[in-house]
Amino acid sequence: MVLQDQKFPASADVLGRFERIADNGAIADELGTLLGRAPLFSDFTREDVKSLSEYMGVYRADVGETIIREGDVGDFMLLIVRGEVDILKQGVHREQQHMTTVGAGTTIGEMSMIDGEPRFASCRTTQATTFGVLTRDNMAKIILEQPQLGAKILVKLVTMLSARLRQTSAKLMRYMEGIIS
Amino acid sequence: MVLQDQKFPASADVLGRFERIADNGAIADELGTLLGRAPLFSDFTREDVKSLSEYMGVYRADVGETIIREGDVGDFMLLIVRGEVDILKQGVHREQQHMTTVGAGTTIGEMSMIDGEPRFASCRTTQATTFGVLTRDNMAKIILEQPQLGAKILVKLVTMLSARLRQTSAKLMRYMEGIIS
Repeated sequence: MVLQDQKFPASADVLGRFERIADNGAIADELGTLLGRAPLFSDFTREDVKSLSEYMGVYRADVGETIIREGDVGDFMLLIVRGEVDILKQGVHREQQHMTTVGAGTTIGEMSMIDGEPRFASCRTTQATTFGVLTRDNMAKIILEQPQLGAKILVKLVTMLSARLRQTSAKLMRYMEGIIS
Repeated sequence: MVLQDQKFPASADVLGRFERIADNGAIADELGTLLGRAPLFSDFTREDVKSLSEYMGVYRADVGETIIREGDVGDFMLLIVRGEVDILKQGVHREQQHMTTVGAGTTIGEMSMIDGEPRFASCRTTQATTFGVLTRDNMAKIILEQPQLGAKILVKLVTMLSARLRQTSAKLMRYMEGIIS
């Protein structure tokens, strides 16, 4: 196994309070709406999305729900299908700082999905939101059962993390040089 | 050796000026010294390293050589086998700022290897340095020909980028909150 499983509790507890779409065809349809929109799917065919839908759950949350909580152990990532989510991080005085707002097509929580470290920030819905969930266990299954699809997903994750790391590092450099203060 | 040369087209003109180890067995031996030391290899078996060595070149650079130049297009990553490298980034006034120094086991340039964006920083040897090179083309070949090994490498890259992104974001947060200035 490439990804160590059994290391972290199943995600079901955290997600149990959200309405879940159980039908595979419906999941594929929901995810299919992101083709051409979600960076994760930028090289995906409809077939890829159909294969992936067998490994993903789709959930619906109301407005004002916290779907990921900073500091929690989390072993899944989210893909927002519809709706909008605030990304919040606790400041030094434990107040919630608004970092950004993201919508359909955005992937959240992929770092913890892969490395099992605590959640870096919280995510709260600003409207009714539909999201796909990919757990670490299922990512490991994809790699084993459909390695080409697994590699496609992993390459996308590396690309997205690289882009974010470049942006964050560039911003940090500007702070360090005193251009922003 | 023929297989090696087919799999490792001396792609990077940039690397042409460094002494290259051409023998596959020697490459595997060099990379093997990193087992148990390099984060990239943390789940690797000796067999994995042997497979990977067929897709990697190993080079030697003298002290004071720039092996990656900020802003260049680059389609390969480095794995330092022996030696030490300064990571330098141009400041606003175009002066070289020293960011960090890294040694054996460290992976460099994986962002450009995957996403093809210009190099974010420069790398200059502070002593005679031996390094492995994995090009994007060969990463693609590994994914096709040895998908499990490909997934293993990609999972490591995601994990390493996640860790760096967490560190960089946390540091940025501290600057933004005025704790460091």
